[in-house]
Amino acid sequence: MYPGTIARLIEAFLKLPGIGPKTAARLAFFVLKMPREEVAGMARALVEARDKTSYCKLCGNYCEGERCVICRDVRRDQAVVCVVQEARDVLAMEKTREFRGYYHVLGGAISPLDGIGPEQLRVRELLERLGGSQVRELILATNPNVEGEATAHYLAKVIKPLGVRVTRIAHGLPVGADLEYADEVTLSRALEGRREM
Amino acid sequence: MYPGTIARLIEAFLKLPGIGPKTAARLAFFVLKMPREEVAGMARALVEARDKTSYCKLCGNYCEGERCVICRDVRRDQAVVCVVQEARDVLAMEKTREFRGYYHVLGGAISPLDGIGPEQLRVRELLERLGGSQVRELILATNPNVEGEATAHYLAKVIKPLGVRVTRIAHGLPVGADLEYADEVTLSRALEGRREM
Repeated sequence: MYPGTIARLIEAFLKLPGIGPKTAARLAFFVLKMPREEVAGMARALVEARDKTSYCKLCGNYCEGERCVICRDVRRDQAVVCVVQEARDVLAMEKTREFRGYYHVLGGAISPLDGIGPEQLRVRELLERLGGSQVRELILATNPNVEGEATAHYLAKVIKPLGVRVTRIAHGLPVGADLEYADEVTLSRALEGRREM
Repeated sequence: MYPGTIARLIEAFLKLPGIGPKTAARLAFFVLKMPREEVAGMARALVEARDKTSYCKLCGNYCEGERCVICRDVRRDQAVVCVVQEARDVLAMEKTREFRGYYHVLGGAISPLDGIGPEQLRVRELLERLGGSQVRELILATNPNVEGEATAHYLAKVIKPLGVRVTRIAHGLPVGADLEYADEVTLSRALEGRREM
């Protein structure tokens, strides 16, 4: 019913996550009314992001060259490395403005059902990085779910013998949450991790 | 915090309607993991849709050349023309598979507050099209809101004198709706438009 060009644009939007047929059509019609240069800029941004973005050779974070902005920053604390699952988790951590060490991106979490073991993650790179380095603490910030927990336990097991302190980010109630609606696992973890006031 | 290429892609997604910072970032990270050719195809679809899509010279529907697929279809009923506000409304009508006439896209609705009067809409084109044609009925399918109603009333006033039958799509309860939750205006319109069973 639509001209082929519009149909192809709708199809393109449909490939994006969380975008169904109605939203795809709405976005396509919006694009048709956008200034031509803005659409061209959007197309360029797509291709350039895909073509020029690579992963930092050291930590696995997104970057444009060999080393990411964080690994290039010499003012950060070399004694602490925070391990996260995905490159996008680095930004979540950075937004807290609390952490001043470096990162290590695993590229996923251990998940036997999906055929992902330590060999499929950047674990070897992490061990190489720790060997002979000044790192004194490794903070495990993998996700608080089954895969993330399994990964944290595995890493703790292999890294503790190297004499590096291994810590795990805290589980507990999110700030602003309601005790009444908290699930029992979170609540028992919050109780377990209670601190002196 | 992100490399410039990712930041620019997030900004590009932010220009689309209904897409906030979190969704824009999620879409951008998804694009980074898409096959390179698929991203290139998406970029091409954007530019081509914007560059090659034009409006049908006759009815105002989206098309790729001079005339849209509907106006080129000689098997449709020349006696009926359905007036809609936007080109995308044509598809909504077509999906019903009930209408076999032609369309006329106004390009909006009368809205004095926004400075839109009949002169800003494709009303002149509609009158020219009706003059000396075989059109016997004009169905007004503008939106059932203040602007759409005002537009329908205006069109009825100027077109009825031409001897063309002017009808308006029915107001009433949407199929599957709940009487209890219907607003009183819709309900009174549904009552007003009641039909013999």
